[in-house]
Amino acid sequence: MMDLRASFDRDWSRFHAEWCELLRFPSISAVPAHHGDCLHCASWLERHLAAIGFAARQLDAGPKPAVYAERKGDAGAPTVLLYGHYDVQPVDPVASWKTPPFEPSLRDGRLFARGAQDNKGQLFYVLKAIETLLRANRLRPTVRILVEGEEECGSVGIAGRLPTWRELLKADYLMVCDTGSPVREAPAIIMGLRGILNLSIRLRGPSHDLHSGVHGGKAPNPALGMARLLASLHDDDGRVRVAGFYDGVREPSAEERRLAGTPPYDAARYRQETGVAAVGGERAYTPAERVGFRPCLDANGMRSGYAGAGVKTIIPADAEAKLTARLVPGQDPQRCLLDIIAHVERHVPEGMALEIVEKGVSGGALRVDPDAPGVAMACAALREVSGREPIRLWEGASIPIVAGLRDVSGAEPILAGFGLEEDSIHAPNESFSIEQFRNGYLYAGLLLQRLGGG
Amino acid sequence: MMDLRASFDRDWSRFHAEWCELLRFPSISAVPAHHGDCLHCASWLERHLAAIGFAARQLDAGPKPAVYAERKGDAGAPTVLLYGHYDVQPVDPVASWKTPPFEPSLRDGRLFARGAQDNKGQLFYVLKAIETLLRANRLRPTVRILVEGEEECGSVGIAGRLPTWRELLKADYLMVCDTGSPVREAPAIIMGLRGILNLSIRLRGPSHDLHSGVHGGKAPNPALGMARLLASLHDDDGRVRVAGFYDGVREPSAEERRLAGTPPYDAARYRQETGVAAVGGERAYTPAERVGFRPCLDANGMRSGYAGAGVKTIIPADAEAKLTARLVPGQDPQRCLLDIIAHVERHVPEGMALEIVEKGVSGGALRVDPDAPGVAMACAALREVSGREPIRLWEGASIPIVAGLRDVSGAEPILAGFGLEEDSIHAPNESFSIEQFRNGYLYAGLLLQRLGGG
Repeated sequence: MMDLRASFDRDWSRFHAEWCELLRFPSISAVPAHHGDCLHCASWLERHLAAIGFAARQLDAGPKPAVYAERKGDAGAPTVLLYGHYDVQPVDPVASWKTPPFEPSLRDGRLFARGAQDNKGQLFYVLKAIETLLRANRLRPTVRILVEGEEECGSVGIAGRLPTWRELLKADYLMVCDTGSPVREAPAIIMGLRGILNLSIRLRGPSHDLHSGVHGGKAPNPALGMARLLASLHDDDGRVRVAGFYDGVREPSAEERRLAGTPPYDAARYRQETGVAAVGGERAYTPAERVGFRPCLDANGMRSGYAGAGVKTIIPADAEAKLTARLVPGQDPQRCLLDIIAHVERHVPEGMALEIVEKGVSGGALRVDPDAPGVAMACAALREVSGREPIRLWEGASIPIVAGLRDVSGAEPILAGFGLEEDSIHAPNESFSIEQFRNGYLYAGLLLQRLGGG
Repeated sequence: MMDLRASFDRDWSRFHAEWCELLRFPSISAVPAHHGDCLHCASWLERHLAAIGFAARQLDAGPKPAVYAERKGDAGAPTVLLYGHYDVQPVDPVASWKTPPFEPSLRDGRLFARGAQDNKGQLFYVLKAIETLLRANRLRPTVRILVEGEEECGSVGIAGRLPTWRELLKADYLMVCDTGSPVREAPAIIMGLRGILNLSIRLRGPSHDLHSGVHGGKAPNPALGMARLLASLHDDDGRVRVAGFYDGVREPSAEERRLAGTPPYDAARYRQETGVAAVGGERAYTPAERVGFRPCLDANGMRSGYAGAGVKTIIPADAEAKLTARLVPGQDPQRCLLDIIAHVERHVPEGMALEIVEKGVSGGALRVDPDAPGVAMACAALREVSGREPIRLWEGASIPIVAGLRDVSGAEPILAGFGLEEDSIHAPNESFSIEQFRNGYLYAGLLLQRLGGG
């Protein structure tokens, strides 16, 4: 195995200069005014991948192109598909940035810029590790790279095209470095992600707000009706009462439970970080199990009538609520959505009408087999970089495109990254430490050698 | 009994001119820029009452003065207290007015102006009837008049001063002409009003909005918590579940039920006017009984998290709801408020904290004895004016100051007026028909003669 520590020290100043080049593109996918910057960024990446030694091109993927590149490896070696994104979050409030978001600034061992971590930084350390192995003639696998430009807008463009890219994306391993660890001390590998669906509903009552004196006790009240409808979604033990919702959900194995409980849940820290005790959801499971292995149904917001200062004596004409469910493997997202709609329809209060305002299914869930070979190799690489046993994380959040990529590529997902809370991704003053960039570079280099059988 | 039909015809053009003078004051109590106009309007009224033959003066009642006037009647004759208000609603949206709101315009038998009906018009026909009787030497009762300038802002100023005005306001009958009839065909007399209390609450959960993926199933959700809390307020039959809420509430008598059911409830018309069936409130009572004789508890609005378009994957930091209860005689408003707060406190969901944002009790309820002498005389006067049996209305709405005036004056309330839905009070193009002004004048003149034993 090649030790990349020496190559990093030798090439770091060049890596830094190139990384800054990439960060200077204000490739904010959500802001139409930055469309041209996104195109320029994609072209830069295409050229950069070609310079490294890849056959690179752009794929039409809706408004923003995706960059695709391939480099054939040794005969008989496996294929690794690397996924990343070159688009970044908006920079508001821009006045809160200590240095301009698209003028990378190195301070105290950290590079500050929008995208410094998410995902340009984490993408770039993998590219530099690939480049190093290639130049040393140590890259055995075939490597395919897909870098999209709309991840921060929901990956809608590429999601629709995945089925047509099946041949391009076929692989044995799917490598994603867009995650992090909850603690600085140890790296983490993602063992699961939840899927997500959304549903916005409206209850219509009176044709207009009614006088609450003239009509109170006579007209049905949509605010109270919505409250009763939402209250019907869970039982007193926090279990979702929607018929069929848990169909297909598998209990975690003893080993999964053990791993999910390591390190043990820190109640005091959770309260400090969130202001609440972790008492939401199903009582029958621990907090880590609820987030990692159980689906849930939340209200993200609601609105009815007048909620400002003072008294407004009305019976509101309507009430709205926005729901999202997080799903786990075994659940059929489309069927779950229909089950929830059926429940809501059955619970429409008397005198009111239900309207489905919005609904959608953004992707299925992902669960990685703890005994899968890619996971074992990734854990070995993480151990080697950090000297610590990596944390297995069953995440509650969703990266909808990953399940799609897994399905279309047929690859085993390997999700590990070097992000930390301190990086402030999606917030002003995003940054990434040189130390974590280097750890990522070492991890990627070691993993690619292991995957190649090296 | 003096027939006032002839005097109306004789004096109508002068009545009209004076009424227009009163309507030209833009006495909008809610708009600070119109404070001076309110003061000018009060001074005009004071002079006008003095000119009619009253001892008139202004009473300090907070920002806007009240006008008080008295004219001693025959020894042994009863005392009548007339209540009205000279302030008017704002005129927004002023562009919707066909003629300027403070330039009275007579069209198709209706006078258009802000305040044309509410309350300057209905106050003024009583004053003109009093003037007519006085000039004809037919006014037997002692008449006391209180015209306030903050009714449209909740009568807060005079409500606080009522106890200190006990001697000024002492009376046998309290005459209020600030109401109307639901139908053009028959006049109506108000047999009851409900009291009102208000309570705004907030449930606090996480210290900030949390990511619904990372925390879904772990963090308690204030939107769902508020839904469960609000759902706990009523049982499946629409009955309020707050312990103690119905204490002291008396069932309507058979006679009250019969009168409240006359004319019978028109389900089709209710649906047409409101867009809903009258299926709110307690199943055990008819719609008219629920509004007239039963208290109720409504949510006027609620708010939590994000309720706009699209998906925002958060667990909201908090949730707010605004409640009002309508109260009936027998209930102690202050105790009801405490009972509701106690219920809410007992139903705070695990992991959340309750905050009482606002609370208040705006006044007790009012119920008039169907067999009271004043009611009988008012009904006789209404029959004489209209040739129809007056409708007895147990109103669901509140005029909080009336209960206070009844308490401090010791008087029997007589609430009847000639407003109709078509008058568009509180809306652009408010108007009052000359026909209804004339009916009001006749009613007031006949009632004052009957009350004086004439």
